[in-house]
Amino acid sequence: MKPKIITPELSIRYKKIQTALADCGADACLISTNINMLFVAGRVLNGYCYVPVVGNPVFFIRRPVGIEVDTVYPIRKPEQIIELLQQIGMPLPRHLLVEAGEITHLDFLRLEQAMKAKKTGDCTQLLRQVRATKTSFEIELLKESARLQSEMFTELPSLYRQGMTDTDLAIAVEQSLRKKGCVPTLRIFGSTMEGGIVCVWAGENAATPSPYDFSLGGAGISAYPVGDNGTLLTQGMAVMIDTGCNVNGYIADQTRTFSIGKLAQKAYAMHQVSLEIHHQLIDFVVPGITAEMVYQKAMQLVDAHNLRHCFMGTVQQAPFVGHGVGLVVNELPVLCDRNTMCIEEQMVLAIEPKFIVEGVGAVGVENTYIVRKNGLEKITLAPEDIIAL
Amino acid sequence: MKPKIITPELSIRYKKIQTALADCGADACLISTNINMLFVAGRVLNGYCYVPVVGNPVFFIRRPVGIEVDTVYPIRKPEQIIELLQQIGMPLPRHLLVEAGEITHLDFLRLEQAMKAKKTGDCTQLLRQVRATKTSFEIELLKESARLQSEMFTELPSLYRQGMTDTDLAIAVEQSLRKKGCVPTLRIFGSTMEGGIVCVWAGENAATPSPYDFSLGGAGISAYPVGDNGTLLTQGMAVMIDTGCNVNGYIADQTRTFSIGKLAQKAYAMHQVSLEIHHQLIDFVVPGITAEMVYQKAMQLVDAHNLRHCFMGTVQQAPFVGHGVGLVVNELPVLCDRNTMCIEEQMVLAIEPKFIVEGVGAVGVENTYIVRKNGLEKITLAPEDIIAL
Repeated sequence: MKPKIITPELSIRYKKIQTALADCGADACLISTNINMLFVAGRVLNGYCYVPVVGNPVFFIRRPVGIEVDTVYPIRKPEQIIELLQQIGMPLPRHLLVEAGEITHLDFLRLEQAMKAKKTGDCTQLLRQVRATKTSFEIELLKESARLQSEMFTELPSLYRQGMTDTDLAIAVEQSLRKKGCVPTLRIFGSTMEGGIVCVWAGENAATPSPYDFSLGGAGISAYPVGDNGTLLTQGMAVMIDTGCNVNGYIADQTRTFSIGKLAQKAYAMHQVSLEIHHQLIDFVVPGITAEMVYQKAMQLVDAHNLRHCFMGTVQQAPFVGHGVGLVVNELPVLCDRNTMCIEEQMVLAIEPKFIVEGVGAVGVENTYIVRKNGLEKITLAPEDIIAL
Repeated sequence: MKPKIITPELSIRYKKIQTALADCGADACLISTNINMLFVAGRVLNGYCYVPVVGNPVFFIRRPVGIEVDTVYPIRKPEQIIELLQQIGMPLPRHLLVEAGEITHLDFLRLEQAMKAKKTGDCTQLLRQVRATKTSFEIELLKESARLQSEMFTELPSLYRQGMTDTDLAIAVEQSLRKKGCVPTLRIFGSTMEGGIVCVWAGENAATPSPYDFSLGGAGISAYPVGDNGTLLTQGMAVMIDTGCNVNGYIADQTRTFSIGKLAQKAYAMHQVSLEIHHQLIDFVVPGITAEMVYQKAMQLVDAHNLRHCFMGTVQQAPFVGHGVGLVVNELPVLCDRNTMCIEEQMVLAIEPKFIVEGVGAVGVENTYIVRKNGLEKITLAPEDIIAL
């Protein structure tokens, strides 16, 4: 399958990277991770993309063979890059950036030696910042992922059968998303992160701490300690379903809460607090404010309802209220305290205020939003109330 | 869910690591990746496991809170480790190994500075070598994954419906494996590798090159370029299904070939060559031979049938005939040319001779085997002939 991406779109992305390279005085960056390769080529390639601060990028590719991308040179190893750059007549970099926050130490040493730059720095944050603000093309792809994901949530009650466990329901949701075109893997930033496309938290399990840095934990099954743990879904239980739907390379992040029968009244009240936070942030989050201001605004409401003790967990609490989404499920910015990163137009934010209700489970909603001039545009449009299954 | 693992089992693993540390003159290793943490703790933990060359390991853990593991200290950051080691009265390492082939360059620099060792080296290969040879406990877990996976393959014809695409079938297989207890993610070594628990290759798509280092490629869907690509399953098409089933943390790797109706005769003949390679290797692979000898033995048979041009791909060919499996789907050893790594008893090998049949698709079988004194013990026991769907 050929990538849908077109050259004018890629040119916008190169320009954004080149502006960032110029800002930090670098001559070039050398990209090799799958995610950044997707960003600069519109597809995963095994090899390197060399982006000079001025001029056109060049691709040095191991696999697949026979690809059709502008200016591509087949290579076996990174040691060939310098000679090929010389042959093309491109100036060699004195100050080179590589993805030092993502590639392994051994790969870094090899690239540093192969590229012979006077100075080799890191472009991990630079590229994550560039990716944080989306192009109109990227936003369209995100909206399509969100549309199909919302369709799944709207149909979700039909996936439920009495006697199901949380794992059974997770599998049914996975299958539904997959049938709508979602790929089977969830792309995440951070080498100790791992996760599937669906997380189901039912009842007490929602408060179980996990080793991962997600909004909530869950004991998980087997040696995979997050989400559903085989809990039988029974009357009075809240069932929270968090999904990352990637249909076009771009992930929409959406969570909805369901119930088995009727929940204790406090659960509905706390769910309303989550909706109220969303409601207030829709107008509050505009270009120019900072990530920490978003977090603090949410926390004001959490505190006004005296719910800090059960916000984003209980014994272990996630210290954020949301995050960017895009090619990975955890793009910049993280909406947390002491993050002064500026909110910009066309950023895409997943906002997920969640509460643990003792004896009931997790409640709340997560939506993905586009940052527009006057506030947030919601793209995850499934019903937000707690629906009884 | 509490991990099933027991302390005597972990002690065997610590001993294996400590023997390897002593062999290379290191004082300790500091483990932080999920896979090695699974190996030393029996579960994923976010933090560090410090394994001294002599004495008991100590855990320094960020998340989850409140875990029950021997000698665990909660920490926020790696800079706390040295002080805690001093408080416990453990000698500080002069020659420390970290997972330099897996952790990022920036994480390496941080650990190097935090740990203040005179020399900081790499334990990636050392730990992969230790993990290559399994304990009896690990083999039991592998057998259980293999058993459930074989059950799925045996039931597979009931998952097929006329008019399905390869993607529809992949989704049905995923769902079946998940219902048997398989986790939703496939753990793989290598930062540019990614994959799901199921790969379906139907017809011509089997020969499409991919950026990943799997046995075959496939165009994939969307921005996920491997495996099924929406090919309608039609008469005369070979359908190869490759799955990694992880029920207990340990992955069994098994591939079977199915057909839609009857295939061209040459497809059955080439499938028999794959079976013949398995048959010969079962007696040939014994402790003491090398990985390259396994590869060369397989290639002798491939050449005897004059099938080198379509072995493990056509335009792009995988240069191996198999690999270790365990906590990741691609453990050591790689069964390829110029690999002198010695085959040892209780290694677990996935052997996967596959051929592309022009106009038909991919044929062949992959089995997971335990290396025993007198040859290979097969643990993936689904029927091996091409079954018509």
